[in-house]
Amino acid sequence: SGLVHVKNPHLDSMEEDVLYHLDLGTKTHNLPAMFGDVKFVCVGGSPNRMRAFAQFMHKELGLAGDGEDLADICAGTDRYAMYRAGPVLSISHGMGIPSISIMLHELIKLLHHAKCRDVTIIRIGTSGGLGIESGSIVITDMAVDSSFKPRFEQVVLDDVVVRSTELDRDLAEELLTCSKEIPDLPTLIGHTMCTYDFYEGQGRLDGALCSFSSEKKLDYLKRAYDAGVRNIEMESTAFAALCRLCGLRGES
Amino acid sequence: SGLVHVKNPHLDSMEEDVLYHLDLGTKTHNLPAMFGDVKFVCVGGSPNRMRAFAQFMHKELGLAGDGEDLADICAGTDRYAMYRAGPVLSISHGMGIPSISIMLHELIKLLHHAKCRDVTIIRIGTSGGLGIESGSIVITDMAVDSSFKPRFEQVVLDDVVVRSTELDRDLAEELLTCSKEIPDLPTLIGHTMCTYDFYEGQGRLDGALCSFSSEKKLDYLKRAYDAGVRNIEMESTAFAALCRLCGLRGES
Repeated sequence: SGLVHVKNPHLDSMEEDVLYHLDLGTKTHNLPAMFGDVKFVCVGGSPNRMRAFAQFMHKELGLAGDGEDLADICAGTDRYAMYRAGPVLSISHGMGIPSISIMLHELIKLLHHAKCRDVTIIRIGTSGGLGIESGSIVITDMAVDSSFKPRFEQVVLDDVVVRSTELDRDLAEELLTCSKEIPDLPTLIGHTMCTYDFYEGQGRLDGALCSFSSEKKLDYLKRAYDAGVRNIEMESTAFAALCRLCGLRGES
Repeated sequence: SGLVHVKNPHLDSMEEDVLYHLDLGTKTHNLPAMFGDVKFVCVGGSPNRMRAFAQFMHKELGLAGDGEDLADICAGTDRYAMYRAGPVLSISHGMGIPSISIMLHELIKLLHHAKCRDVTIIRIGTSGGLGIESGSIVITDMAVDSSFKPRFEQVVLDDVVVRSTELDRDLAEELLTCSKEIPDLPTLIGHTMCTYDFYEGQGRLDGALCSFSSEKKLDYLKRAYDAGVRNIEMESTAFAALCRLCGLRGES
């Protein structure tokens, strides 16, 4: 059907669904009218960058007006920012798995309530490249954890549930094909490693704490490269796991 | 000495330390002049709320001017916001452990470079209360994980290091004493549970995914209460572990 799958039997019996961190809700907003025709969702960490991206899409799509005054759809909260340019939603998610997870839960419910069909979601974010040319675009075939395994461990109450983090292969190939039309845009498909920490977790030597040597750092990064990792960031495993479970065609 | 301890032997040999996510640095800013007399740091998730808190402190401390036009010291980035009112810094940290960790690494280095002494740091955040009167203030004696254990598991490269999450008992008692001077402010000392997820991790029935019954949720929350947990949030274990390791007197 192309609809987004919400996997929560409790939702049907709720009179109202408040998407608290987006400052939206089923009683306060007409979600099908506002979002029913959305086909693409692009997400990234920084609110300013996601506004700039929406403005860029507005111009690329040739929409009326100069796109400079796009309104933040989530203006009532400073947790996330959301902009719209035609069929494209552009949303910020902050930094790290817990932050993107809250946004994705509420976004998935939003797309469900709005009865959106055939939605593609793409995370566009900064990441640290590994053994590749600076400025390269890495299209993720699978997100891996700090042990290079394609899995996301989700704590549900006090149980640990392991979820798959493979992304949509066809979409990855499609994006790679598109990238070839743009000159001087080095692009490759590879694994993306997702960590819970920017300093100690990614082998940085300049945090407030650092207990390892430069050699140990390089050994770890080399092992990651040998396992197929081409970039490192902090959201991809949760993003991949949630998209898969809810039937969203996703790429990162 | 009262100084903040940075535990990273690599830092001494670095020519410049760029506190990237704060848009500050040792070559671009005179950190001792800007921050050397800071005595209190208050942190919380939302940038708007941390600005409002700085304005409130500005008035409480009787500083010159109305405090309405406090400048964001990190205005060059939208990752975090930072305001100052006299000896008090007020900083946002976003949502979740990865987000607060990045900020704390860079804040601890900032306090170190600025040669600050005897700094007290307090996290003031929203949290879900457990079996207590709505609107209560919970002062944390120890932060616990989703298994109710006072520990924070930090991934360092691909090793897991377990860190203690006890907070400063004397400071907790001091804050409790202060709270008694304010009428109608229900305040208690208890454990704070820190989770990686807002929906499935905290027993919420209204996420995009929910695989447990209302009974299982209540059983989990009851076990948490019996273990001494009085509120639930998403940053306290990392906050407690980093403060302890770096000699910052911390409360949450």
